Amino acid sequence: MQNWYKDYVTKIEAYLDGFFCSNVTWTELYEAMRYSLLSGGKRIRPVLALEFCRVSGGTPEQALPFAAAVEMIHTYSLIHDDLPAMDNDDLRRGRPTTHIKFGEGMAILAGDALQSAAFRAVLATDLPEDIRCRAGLTLARFAGEDGMVAGQVLDLAGEKRPLTAPELGQVHLLKTSALIQAACVMGTLAGGGTETQVIAADKFARALGVAFQIQDDILDCIGEQEKLGKPIGSDAASGKTTVVTLHGLERAQEMLKEQTEIAKAVLAETFDDTAGLLWLADWLLGREY
Amino acid sequence: MQNWYKDYVTKIEAYLDGFFCSNVTWTELYEAMRYSLLSGGKRIRPVLALEFCRVSGGTPEQALPFAAAVEMIHTYSLIHDDLPAMDNDDLRRGRPTTHIKFGEGMAILAGDALQSAAFRAVLATDLPEDIRCRAGLTLARFAGEDGMVAGQVLDLAGEKRPLTAPELGQVHLLKTSALIQAACVMGTLAGGGTETQVIAADKFARALGVAFQIQDDILDCIGEQEKLGKPIGSDAASGKTTVVTLHGLERAQEMLKEQTEIAKAVLAETFDDTAGLLWLADWLLGREY
Repeated sequence: MQNWYKDYVTKIEAYLDGFFCSNVTWTELYEAMRYSLLSGGKRIRPVLALEFCRVSGGTPEQALPFAAAVEMIHTYSLIHDDLPAMDNDDLRRGRPTTHIKFGEGMAILAGDALQSAAFRAVLATDLPEDIRCRAGLTLARFAGEDGMVAGQVLDLAGEKRPLTAPELGQVHLLKTSALIQAACVMGTLAGGGTETQVIAADKFARALGVAFQIQDDILDCIGEQEKLGKPIGSDAASGKTTVVTLHGLERAQEMLKEQTEIAKAVLAETFDDTAGLLWLADWLLGREY
Repeated sequence: MQNWYKDYVTKIEAYLDGFFCSNVTWTELYEAMRYSLLSGGKRIRPVLALEFCRVSGGTPEQALPFAAAVEMIHTYSLIHDDLPAMDNDDLRRGRPTTHIKFGEGMAILAGDALQSAAFRAVLATDLPEDIRCRAGLTLARFAGEDGMVAGQVLDLAGEKRPLTAPELGQVHLLKTSALIQAACVMGTLAGGGTETQVIAADKFARALGVAFQIQDDILDCIGEQEKLGKPIGSDAASGKTTVVTLHGLERAQEMLKEQTEIAKAVLAETFDDTAGLLWLADWLLGREY
């Protein structure tokens, strides 16, 4: 991992850590919200928000509230996704999931509050009001019933029956690309990017998100449980449709490379100083966790 | 019910009905979201938003997106609150609850998507951007971890142990007043109200919310199941602390009147043309469902 990435992660985690004032009355809710929000992870979405802000002409710090907001939405979706009524996972990043640690009711509420907090983060910044409005709207669209949540619905359907290839493509776009698109677009907005740059950030993110999800499917098949922090082979065991079960491992690896190349090509056309983003795309391509 | 109130309800339901474009791919998600959102109810919060907009100098229609947003947050909280891990209710307004009808996973996701949609409604209006930002921030604060969700957490705690009188006061403020405050304040903002009017709307809503919750507790004790659309005596049976179990029925009825008077007094000081709001407060005081 490159130093600038580590530096961004430090800034993001400090921001997230300071975001919730401690309130003695509902300590347990704050604990449940922070438990998952501050449990590490690659922080890809917020890092992308900061870097797109920088390559669009802003300082990375300017995008911190937007970056944090996307990470809060991502975290709430993981908390709800792990619930017994959804994926029913007991472990996440090698630790008990939120509902195992705090109970199901509290996990539902912590997720709900994280979603509200995300919009609070976007709207309480001191960026110009038109940028805050547009960023909030971007987040609402990519997170909602035509974005991430729709992806979760299709994913849920995929646990009951095999998905077709086009449906699986939709799952990847909605479940994974959507929030990466939110991060890249909101970062570009924070940096005062042009409309051309906003569109390019969106295209880059679509392809990167699909690549990311293909790599997830590959790792579930051939990864190492210790590095991943979750059991291997759970997709195949549960009969879930993935890129690997649908197209085979070899074709999945080709598709991963194709999408990564698409993402990288978009960057070169629209932004200067994209070395960091190009490295990031390659790093994700080769990740083992 | 007065005619203006019915007229507002018609406008609100038409707005909610038109808000979600039908999308053939995730029909079931849309259905689950609309099932609860369009299942009737008194629509008190959105009606208050419209009327506060009017008494602050706007047209009621101006506040429709804000009114709808508050109703979406209210609806998502009901869907999640009815889940087995929370209140575990099978019936709401005389119909099967969302998770009974669509399954638990879909109920969680429909609630999640309704929350995103609420912020989309606030931020996609054509009101000035400073008003949209402030209204969105108001909604995020009253809905989140220091507002409605905190109330749900305390309420959840109250199912395991008796609450003290101050704790129960907090539950009422957070669980019920918070969203009514959001509605009244956002309505006033939409109408271009003064800061004094925003503060008065907030105070009115706090008192009205507490009154509303006390009446809920009273109805659970002496109401008619048929009118309420839910079983009577469930609070007492489950050992839940309510104003009635804590202070007795007579004192609860006094408290209800006191809070209603506080709410009405605030109005007279700050707004003209408050006949509708005064009637509404009295109507809620005497409601049987």
